Amino acid sequence: MTRFLTPLAQGLPATVPFTGPETLERTRGRPFRARLGANESLFGPSPRAVEAMAQAAAEAWMYGDPDQHDLKAAIAAHHGIAPGHIVPGEGIDGLLGLLVRLTVAPGDRVVTSAGAYPTFAFHVTGHGGTLTRVPYLGNHEDPQALLDAAHATGAKLLYLSNPDNPMGSHHPAEVIEAMLDLLPATCLLVLDEAYIDLAPAGTAPRIAPDDPRVIRFRTFSKGYGLAGLRMGYALAAEPLARAFDRVRNHFGLGRIAQAGAIAALNDQGWLAHVRGQVEHAKLRIARIARANGLEPLPSATNFVTIDCGRGGAFARAVLTALQDRDVFVRMPGIAPLDRCIRISAGDAAALAVLEEALPAALAAARG
Amino acid sequence: MTRFLTPLAQGLPATVPFTGPETLERTRGRPFRARLGANESLFGPSPRAVEAMAQAAAEAWMYGDPDQHDLKAAIAAHHGIAPGHIVPGEGIDGLLGLLVRLTVAPGDRVVTSAGAYPTFAFHVTGHGGTLTRVPYLGNHEDPQALLDAAHATGAKLLYLSNPDNPMGSHHPAEVIEAMLDLLPATCLLVLDEAYIDLAPAGTAPRIAPDDPRVIRFRTFSKGYGLAGLRMGYALAAEPLARAFDRVRNHFGLGRIAQAGAIAALNDQGWLAHVRGQVEHAKLRIARIARANGLEPLPSATNFVTIDCGRGGAFARAVLTALQDRDVFVRMPGIAPLDRCIRISAGDAAALAVLEEALPAALAAARG
Repeated sequence: MTRFLTPLAQGLPATVPFTGPETLERTRGRPFRARLGANESLFGPSPRAVEAMAQAAAEAWMYGDPDQHDLKAAIAAHHGIAPGHIVPGEGIDGLLGLLVRLTVAPGDRVVTSAGAYPTFAFHVTGHGGTLTRVPYLGNHEDPQALLDAAHATGAKLLYLSNPDNPMGSHHPAEVIEAMLDLLPATCLLVLDEAYIDLAPAGTAPRIAPDDPRVIRFRTFSKGYGLAGLRMGYALAAEPLARAFDRVRNHFGLGRIAQAGAIAALNDQGWLAHVRGQVEHAKLRIARIARANGLEPLPSATNFVTIDCGRGGAFARAVLTALQDRDVFVRMPGIAPLDRCIRISAGDAAALAVLEEALPAALAAARG
Repeated sequence: MTRFLTPLAQGLPATVPFTGPETLERTRGRPFRARLGANESLFGPSPRAVEAMAQAAAEAWMYGDPDQHDLKAAIAAHHGIAPGHIVPGEGIDGLLGLLVRLTVAPGDRVVTSAGAYPTFAFHVTGHGGTLTRVPYLGNHEDPQALLDAAHATGAKLLYLSNPDNPMGSHHPAEVIEAMLDLLPATCLLVLDEAYIDLAPAGTAPRIAPDDPRVIRFRTFSKGYGLAGLRMGYALAAEPLARAFDRVRNHFGLGRIAQAGAIAALNDQGWLAHVRGQVEHAKLRIARIARANGLEPLPSATNFVTIDCGRGGAFARAVLTALQDRDVFVRMPGIAPLDRCIRISAGDAAALAVLEEALPAALAAARG
């Protein structure tokens, strides 16, 4: 502890939201053979994005445009809305942090689901907010219970991911649209749509761009295969979108990041290709799970959550046994979700490793 | 204004620290011929770094290592200290924001110089801190006056850049070292060494890595020519360094950024080459200034600050006239520093444009 920290900072835990696979590899002393834990896209980014990034690398002596003009224009055109609604940022993680900073004062209440995205909770705690965690209803986040909690606590923010991480479930657009009319007037809906590019048609709600009740988050990390670029964006009514300018790291999106994201967005054919590959991979993961007596849950994302059927300790043992066999996977952190493990829609090579390793891993976990 | 902002966020100005050259170019309707305003390195990044970034682009589907292990190891080896002292981040800008968040509660006092780095002030204001701005002593930040202000106000932070931006001056190591013993016990020295790679020998103070009284900031944006990558780092005693883990965007440094920075650090020959080019360019800028009756100030950085000799309005007219002639430069924002303009150590082509444009710009400003 250093004596210079604020009282709030002094009270924060030293824990981090996620342990990276590289950290595990260093501990193990050997690399994973299948990297299936972080829902990265093993199908890679668009070759056009790779080319754009390589070209931008030679120009990286120049700061990126702090107004992100061309990037915002490209995103705006993609969505058919005005650039003023768009807030690019250093991944959804970075943008969630800025949103919480803008809206949550110490002591303010925030509602999320028990087992939902840890990084959002990290930011709320980090800014002194108080979290209310609502249980899932089965494998879905529970809209009515979330709304009830928001009313009961006077929450400033209500977080919902749709499709959901870590369960892979989703609500149809109508459910989200209906939530907006039931929010407390003082509560903003934080709609994390990280996986929306992989979701079935009819999942993305129809929300007017200037609707002040919601802020939506999108990313280039999943379908676009650019997790290592760090690029996401928010969609919000202009007054809220522009409030980010008061606190953001204005030069934080570099030249390579902006060029890569624009090129990726302009290659929707690649995204369609990836969607096809992901559907194929999810079917294979489901087959592998069933062949081993496990239950794959329906997925609207680029991963399959598998119910191991015997509670958290067993699922954790399966996960450990898979990692011992060089398969990197993750699992939900909180009961009852932690009866599951979560496997990214990998390429054929990675899923072959999974298929080979799972029977022995299950045997080890059962032994 | 949106109704969801905290009282602090509601009170923040909508102003931004810097206007980017791209924004000016869009307003003007044509590009600059010489980009000499942001102290970018026109000599570019190491070709090895460019190659490393291009290779990493193809692997950008993977998140960057959130522990930044290899990057911290490379920086640690470079400085001959333990990795635990190192905090990589999204440029010094991003790291300054995290530092202020960790240390400055609303109402806390912070000392800086009048005319010093606007982005630091942006972060202090953004977290509710109260700034005391100490005048420069001539063309130098004034260590004794800064210390006096820190004592008088009970400041939590004292910001000093050495070498200085925007004046290009520097204090020898001994001056900084002596400051540490004169700090109030409750005040942390924030030592911004963005330009240290370009400074004369004997500028970097000898400070023990575990000295708790200071945090130093370095960047890949200046000498290393990677402003568009967004990569800087702090050096601090371990308790303070590790406190950043409580609030940082853990996956915020992507795969390309980490690979590029490691490669740049490993190519010290390129940095030496750039230093030579910068010295050459600074001599040429000084000659151009003198040939036009202006006074170039001594520079320990990769830019030359030029005293235009007639106060802020005249210098601003010169700057505008240069921009009208397609030369992007910047100037200090506050009197009496604003009698100057600030010109980056550009390559031969850019300085030829400057040499051609300056006489007419001066004539226009005088007319």
